Amino acid sequence: MRIGALSTRTGVPVPTIKYYLREGLLHPGELTSPNQAQYGDGHVRRLKLVRALLDVGKLSIAATRTVLDSVDAPDSSLHEVLGIAQQALTPPVPADDGSADLREAQQLADRLIADRGWQVEPGSPARESLARIVLTYHDLGQADLLVLLDDYAAAAERLAVAEVAAVGRRPDPDSLVEGAVLGTVLGDALITALRRLAQENASARAFAAADS
Amino acid sequence: MRIGALSTRTGVPVPTIKYYLREGLLHPGELTSPNQAQYGDGHVRRLKLVRALLDVGKLSIAATRTVLDSVDAPDSSLHEVLGIAQQALTPPVPADDGSADLREAQQLADRLIADRGWQVEPGSPARESLARIVLTYHDLGQADLLVLLDDYAAAAERLAVAEVAAVGRRPDPDSLVEGAVLGTVLGDALITALRRLAQENASARAFAAADS
Repeated sequence: MRIGALSTRTGVPVPTIKYYLREGLLHPGELTSPNQAQYGDGHVRRLKLVRALLDVGKLSIAATRTVLDSVDAPDSSLHEVLGIAQQALTPPVPADDGSADLREAQQLADRLIADRGWQVEPGSPARESLARIVLTYHDLGQADLLVLLDDYAAAAERLAVAEVAAVGRRPDPDSLVEGAVLGTVLGDALITALRRLAQENASARAFAAADS
Repeated sequence: MRIGALSTRTGVPVPTIKYYLREGLLHPGELTSPNQAQYGDGHVRRLKLVRALLDVGKLSIAATRTVLDSVDAPDSSLHEVLGIAQQALTPPVPADDGSADLREAQQLADRLIADRGWQVEPGSPARESLARIVLTYHDLGQADLLVLLDDYAAAAERLAVAEVAAVGRRPDPDSLVEGAVLGTVLGDALITALRRLAQENASARAFAAADS
């Protein structure tokens, strides 16, 4: 199909498709003349993936490119590809200022990972991300809420095992990686929405009766 | 203290503090002369809250203002204040296009809420947000991963009950609301980081051995 048909099929405006092509988020179409290219079902699918990462995952263009590169990388193992995608999906943290408070938060993160027996690379950005968030709880005077840390970790572990099992049922490596990336991003949004609903319910039960 | 000392105490640059003052995110200091104001511990605390909502919660200036207004509102019940804060923390969804697919996703969201017996307002933005995310799973061909929906909902419910209980231990309404807002935002980030770590572990156990 031509770019106009690709736009109609996906609901993505032609100028946006051209932007994605320039940014390398979408593979070029097959040139049928110097000014005309043909696009296929692979482009439809990739466009939906790009929109999901940008709109649902709220990733930057650069992070989206990194994730797509990892999906397309031919020579990496599945666990490596998932690792690269995960890293792009983990927000970067400010530089380590070497403060004693940060060191303490990093040790708490290490202890939590060790206690749960999690196999995690020492340089995993999520480990550093966890330490920074723990530090933020302290900085904001909310350290009492860290009483929930083990509850959160247990929930994350239960869900991750179920997620990897669900994705592992996919028939081929491409759709498996796509499922891992989209499942991570969409799962973030899903858990956030469900948590808001469950909190509204818990707040109603705990406080609404007392208020009235 | 003067604005310079407030900047030193909080690590927020003076021009940024002045910006927050103009945007109404920070209450004005007490004027001691036409060009000089005094700030107190309340400003230190509020500045940390503002940074948390902007940097950790990734809220817009407008959403941050809405949350702060709800914290400061004198005449609302606790459950109402929490509701307003929750709404600001829920990303807005595109307008309802009335499509059959969206209707179906909304019904699925309603059914999930009813099945769990959650007390949720009909107009709750998280309900609409849930429907849109379910729809996105379908649009992206990832509907098989919705097999996890009940697992996610059960985890969200368990955590929400623990969260409301933890926040409910706070001594006064102000710190209770602050804890609910920050606990929600920081909890989003905490769950995301823990989920990445737990996924890395689950992927290592499921795939790393098979890869090598």
